[in-house]
Amino acid sequence: MNILVVNVGSSTIKYQLFDMETESVVCKGLLDKVGIRGSTLEHKHPGKDTIRIDKDIDDHKTGMDLILKVLLGDGTEEVHVDAVGHRVVHGGESFSSSVVIDESVIKVIEDCSSLAPLHNPPNLMGIRSCMGLLPGIPHVAVFDTAFHQTMKPENYLYALPREAYEKYKVRRYGFHGTSHEFVSQEAAKILGKPYGECRMITLHLGSGASMAAIRNGLVVDTSMGFTPLEGLVMGTRTGDMDPAIVCYLMDKLGLSPGEMDSYLNKKSGLLGLSGVSADLRYVIEAADSGDIHAKEALEVYCLRIKGYVGNYMAKLNGCDCLVFTAGVGENSSLVRERVLENMDALGIGLDREKNRAGCMNCDISLPGTPVRIYVVPTNEELMIARETLELVR
Amino acid sequence: MNILVVNVGSSTIKYQLFDMETESVVCKGLLDKVGIRGSTLEHKHPGKDTIRIDKDIDDHKTGMDLILKVLLGDGTEEVHVDAVGHRVVHGGESFSSSVVIDESVIKVIEDCSSLAPLHNPPNLMGIRSCMGLLPGIPHVAVFDTAFHQTMKPENYLYALPREAYEKYKVRRYGFHGTSHEFVSQEAAKILGKPYGECRMITLHLGSGASMAAIRNGLVVDTSMGFTPLEGLVMGTRTGDMDPAIVCYLMDKLGLSPGEMDSYLNKKSGLLGLSGVSADLRYVIEAADSGDIHAKEALEVYCLRIKGYVGNYMAKLNGCDCLVFTAGVGENSSLVRERVLENMDALGIGLDREKNRAGCMNCDISLPGTPVRIYVVPTNEELMIARETLELVR
Repeated sequence: MNILVVNVGSSTIKYQLFDMETESVVCKGLLDKVGIRGSTLEHKHPGKDTIRIDKDIDDHKTGMDLILKVLLGDGTEEVHVDAVGHRVVHGGESFSSSVVIDESVIKVIEDCSSLAPLHNPPNLMGIRSCMGLLPGIPHVAVFDTAFHQTMKPENYLYALPREAYEKYKVRRYGFHGTSHEFVSQEAAKILGKPYGECRMITLHLGSGASMAAIRNGLVVDTSMGFTPLEGLVMGTRTGDMDPAIVCYLMDKLGLSPGEMDSYLNKKSGLLGLSGVSADLRYVIEAADSGDIHAKEALEVYCLRIKGYVGNYMAKLNGCDCLVFTAGVGENSSLVRERVLENMDALGIGLDREKNRAGCMNCDISLPGTPVRIYVVPTNEELMIARETLELVR
Repeated sequence: MNILVVNVGSSTIKYQLFDMETESVVCKGLLDKVGIRGSTLEHKHPGKDTIRIDKDIDDHKTGMDLILKVLLGDGTEEVHVDAVGHRVVHGGESFSSSVVIDESVIKVIEDCSSLAPLHNPPNLMGIRSCMGLLPGIPHVAVFDTAFHQTMKPENYLYALPREAYEKYKVRRYGFHGTSHEFVSQEAAKILGKPYGECRMITLHLGSGASMAAIRNGLVVDTSMGFTPLEGLVMGTRTGDMDPAIVCYLMDKLGLSPGEMDSYLNKKSGLLGLSGVSADLRYVIEAADSGDIHAKEALEVYCLRIKGYVGNYMAKLNGCDCLVFTAGVGENSSLVRERVLENMDALGIGLDREKNRAGCMNCDISLPGTPVRIYVVPTNEELMIARETLELVR
């Protein structure tokens, strides 16, 4: 069984073809700058030459068509598509798990577009073109929000007038669900405990970043909220802050709501606070060479995560393991060390040497401490393929 | 030494006269509806009849004049004023402790008015009239923000572009400082440990609510931020939420920034979520009789506090004691129980019977658990008097 995983952004199409017998990648690629001048497709097939096509692509349908021609034009027997898994950002309250796509599903994804105006419309364009080009096989939607739909009202409700939730759908949704689900399932295997009996805290630390508290396979709480702005400090996003600051700064800076949104989502976070970069590696470099703003940005970043670890420890009453993943979580031993230092009162002790060695899927906690600590590489595409397989089988 | 403590709001003047030998209240009173029709002064002197004067009072100076006439017109020897302590809400970054008021101090309090436009101007009116009517004695300003000024940049900075802090003074200030300082000092006495060696979490739960993490007498973190909107769920304030919701709801509801501010500060919190009341007692009553919205509001309220306890336990690496205070904190055994249930992994265990008995200044934790739990009645007026005494002595 081969499954094609498709992830369509506003100007990109990423794809991976999995052989599900071995969960290995047959081939994968990226079509960049769709609808913009200078589009390029890069198609990689292990053991073969990389194919690169420079050709302006006007829309997603033309792009999907090109991708499938290159993919299936390969001619080898191993390249065939039995089902397609589509990443969809926002499933609102309608989807608490993945679903085989039909017209009624498309309608609901459209309805959720007001909650994710930058993401759901291109996701839908990808689904429509792909279903047109690959008819007769199952297409599955896998949602970023679905895994978090097990949260209870006391965790997803904001303390706003009821109309905010009932009429305008304002609640905590949470994102990165596919990643949190993947790494928590992997962590249960390392832990050697049934997934449904584990208490875990997962830390997805990339340029976007979120955490989740998971009890018995169900999400108890997560740090991203109504949008991916809330929670941790990110590359360019502020994360948590006094909501009163929004109107105050709009007034002082003379910004429109749209400009304010961009200020908080694109100019803040590590970039805004350090003045150096949205990329933590450069912030750390600058901090090391004495840049005080970079140093402060790094400290704010780590302390915010530490606070959430405590918050979720309280809500879970302790936990079996912490799971670090994504760019920063997998690669920055410094961040893991800063976040977890001085937390023995909560049962957390990091083995500094094991942490610095950076072994993946290994336990890097101190022996004898109650909380295991793992670094688990995330693989959202494989998770989408697994979900798709489960539904089409 | 007698100290008059004055707390001036936009339409109220509260006052208490302390005999500092015994820290007892000689007399106290409240002038209500200043500048509004139907002003009333109620003056209470233990052992004497309460004086009630109904008379329209046009401004704070006239009000202060009336108060001092009633107070000093008492004629008994015990009623005299040696110094005045004034509550001031916002001291910005200029005041990290109380200060004897002179013209330069008044200037700085004026400068801080942009950060507390509803509070500092009436505070200043009170100071000016009182200094005019009681010249020749020391007047001291005690700030709600001062105690929190020991926070470090990694705790007070938001992840915003630098200009927000450097040009527009946007940072975490924290409020209720006088209360957090008072109850933490009292708790150290119960604990029998030097104040400068304690790690504590103080929970000021009133209609406004905030928490503080205190290490060695210094504030490490606090839940209110740039304004008193951030942090816990309050009577009518939302507390923490995704900042992206502000612009989203302004658009959906067609609100101006000022109207949105009022929506988040006056219509949200327990009131908005329960639809019942801003008063937790009525919310609990409604929840008990099966009102599902009230039940959810109570759960959101308690869970937010629980999360902050964990957050601060992580930042302090455990703590010596939790200190509950203010209306809800002192009187609701139910809230204390809900907040602290299932937290043994963090060293917290509440003795349910002792908790329900509600003994003040007693330890209500389970024997053998690492974290002591106290209920300590707050007394901001006495704290202001103590600070004043210390400065004028």
